[in-house]
Amino acid sequence: MTVPPTFFPVSGARLVATYDLAGSPEAARLRAESIAVEQTIEFPADLVADDDIRGHIIGRIEALERVDDDRSRARISYAVETIGGELPQLLNVLFGNCSLFPGVRLVGLDLPPELLATLPGPRYGIDGLRRLFDAPTRPLLATALKPMGRSSEALAEVASILAAGGIDIIKDDHSLANQPFAPYAERVRACAAAVRRANDESGGRSIYLPALNGPVDELLERARLARDAGAGGLLVLPGLAGMDVIRWLAESDEIGLPIMAHPAFLGSLVVGEDAGIEHGLLFGTLFRLAGADLAVFPSYGGRFSFSIEACASIAHASAAPLGDKPASVPAPGGGMTLDRLDELVAFYGPDVALLVGGDLHRGDLLANVRRMRAAVDSVASPVRAGAPGTGGAGP
Amino acid sequence: MTVPPTFFPVSGARLVATYDLAGSPEAARLRAESIAVEQTIEFPADLVADDDIRGHIIGRIEALERVDDDRSRARISYAVETIGGELPQLLNVLFGNCSLFPGVRLVGLDLPPELLATLPGPRYGIDGLRRLFDAPTRPLLATALKPMGRSSEALAEVASILAAGGIDIIKDDHSLANQPFAPYAERVRACAAAVRRANDESGGRSIYLPALNGPVDELLERARLARDAGAGGLLVLPGLAGMDVIRWLAESDEIGLPIMAHPAFLGSLVVGEDAGIEHGLLFGTLFRLAGADLAVFPSYGGRFSFSIEACASIAHASAAPLGDKPASVPAPGGGMTLDRLDELVAFYGPDVALLVGGDLHRGDLLANVRRMRAAVDSVASPVRAGAPGTGGAGP
Repeated sequence: MTVPPTFFPVSGARLVATYDLAGSPEAARLRAESIAVEQTIEFPADLVADDDIRGHIIGRIEALERVDDDRSRARISYAVETIGGELPQLLNVLFGNCSLFPGVRLVGLDLPPELLATLPGPRYGIDGLRRLFDAPTRPLLATALKPMGRSSEALAEVASILAAGGIDIIKDDHSLANQPFAPYAERVRACAAAVRRANDESGGRSIYLPALNGPVDELLERARLARDAGAGGLLVLPGLAGMDVIRWLAESDEIGLPIMAHPAFLGSLVVGEDAGIEHGLLFGTLFRLAGADLAVFPSYGGRFSFSIEACASIAHASAAPLGDKPASVPAPGGGMTLDRLDELVAFYGPDVALLVGGDLHRGDLLANVRRMRAAVDSVASPVRAGAPGTGGAGP
Repeated sequence: MTVPPTFFPVSGARLVATYDLAGSPEAARLRAESIAVEQTIEFPADLVADDDIRGHIIGRIEALERVDDDRSRARISYAVETIGGELPQLLNVLFGNCSLFPGVRLVGLDLPPELLATLPGPRYGIDGLRRLFDAPTRPLLATALKPMGRSSEALAEVASILAAGGIDIIKDDHSLANQPFAPYAERVRACAAAVRRANDESGGRSIYLPALNGPVDELLERARLARDAGAGGLLVLPGLAGMDVIRWLAESDEIGLPIMAHPAFLGSLVVGEDAGIEHGLLFGTLFRLAGADLAVFPSYGGRFSFSIEACASIAHASAAPLGDKPASVPAPGGGMTLDRLDELVAFYGPDVALLVGGDLHRGDLLANVRRMRAAVDSVASPVRAGAPGTGGAGP
């Protein structure tokens, strides 16, 4: 029995992934070679008889640089045909099997136009959200409905206060799913109606984003219910639902709502310094390519561990040139407090959604919300000219 | 404005998660307290006025033991009502936000009957697969169609050889998606037909499992196409598609096929010793609860890094008592070779699917496949009595 030969077209277009590799320069070279194979043919390279596969399908080491004695950086390119134009397989080629190697961290990505064209990017992005909220220059404001355990009625009442005070983005806590104390359909209808009534009274434009935290076979139904109830956006948990859920919703003209992505269950991808995916690449570039308008992440100085450098990288990647994709909006949260708003705006710049949760509830909620809104209303941003990073997010 | 009080029923049933916490005993105590809050109400505990939420919804530290000066182990319980009976939220409560804490590793899980009843477990499991393959005692055999770049026709020809030689489980390489050289529909129809023809000729019962590696909004269509084409199972990538895809397919009477789960993109959850999820808990318990019949993982001694202890833990968790859930089947792969079959069977026991990929192609494929089958046909397993771990997978 013989296996027939393989014929296929290759365009020559390639994407390039950059990996930091722990270990000696020689160990890194062997690791780079193994990644080139592991992420594509996953087959002993010496057994591949087909010249097309050897020449085009196996990853190609474009560069390998020694960073120091214990670390090297490899640029490995892959034919766009290995992706097949689908986001899950793009992520698979970038980091599927090599997530299982210790000491491999994905730190960079360059996509050719052929691949960029297959990814939606944000439907709204910073400019679309600024139009939606009639907020041409100021930082956007976000918060979460919590705590879990409250009834739908109680959460809706909180939502109405938050909207009355001028919070733009009122999302479900990501842990709100379909629990008995606030079942999804009941909660979403109650909270969307409460925000709509508050907007009607105040002339505001607040939106409510239910957490689309549910069974995969109910996501479409839940998204439709949210849209029909008047929810103004959706909170998506790609670490649990898969990154492609962002892409699907961002591309859906039927749903058509802003997408906010939450980092739940994704921490293991970023917390190890020698492994996983670099913060800006994951929460900036990849979230944005998939179509997230807003990327929630735990800011430096809160309850979590992200460094200032990691947060700057996320903010930078949210707005850096990426084909024709609109800039996404970083939404730093995770224990932010009202007394840090000025500092956060100075750091992230005006193209940000400041996410303050529990601290708004310390004392009078409505007064705190108004204070939060006043703090950003005073931020003038005359320099905003669409340039990435303008006005913030050093280093 | 006042927020109305919250009323909800609590059954008193709780699940218990066990976490290893890095740092001093005092740091671990503070971390355990923060996890109890972070995984539930995500809200300053001192601001929660509601006694029901304080008493029932916030996680409860049931035990905190010092392992050594730099590590403690905490058992934290959560009310079953926090889960709402849905797998994504179960994973969220177990490890959603605390994945973002450094030094937190989820190492154990005890579910009460109320929650176990909401999770399907494997539709087939080891006993169902043994019936399917008419293989009452021997180890099962698995391999992958590769390399990426071959045409559908070429892959189908390989599949026919693998089936003729007696491989039970012939899966797509996990990187086969919908690429131009072997588009999904064409490939699945060709490979399923090739395996059926080979079975007809040999009297064998081999099955072909296409990789369900595609857009979330096409998964159902692709699963139906696979079933209609005669594919005997499905390969699922929960790290990319979300763990709930396993649950959905396992519960689907319409699809009704065995599910093999692949670890792509999940490596970051396990490779860090101080973070992520313990190997057996992820690839054994959680995969099995979700409904995976077979769990692929990289065995010790291959191209990856899993330790002997990690592999033993996966094998143990695949068969340990877990309510009424059938045992799943560990499928150790990642560079396994024919000359190690006896060792692998001695280690994992007979309730295993030995996954050999590239090494089958070293020399004559059909001869190698027959050698692989002969090696397991000679394994007598008279002791198999349904007891977990019988016959292998020490320590």
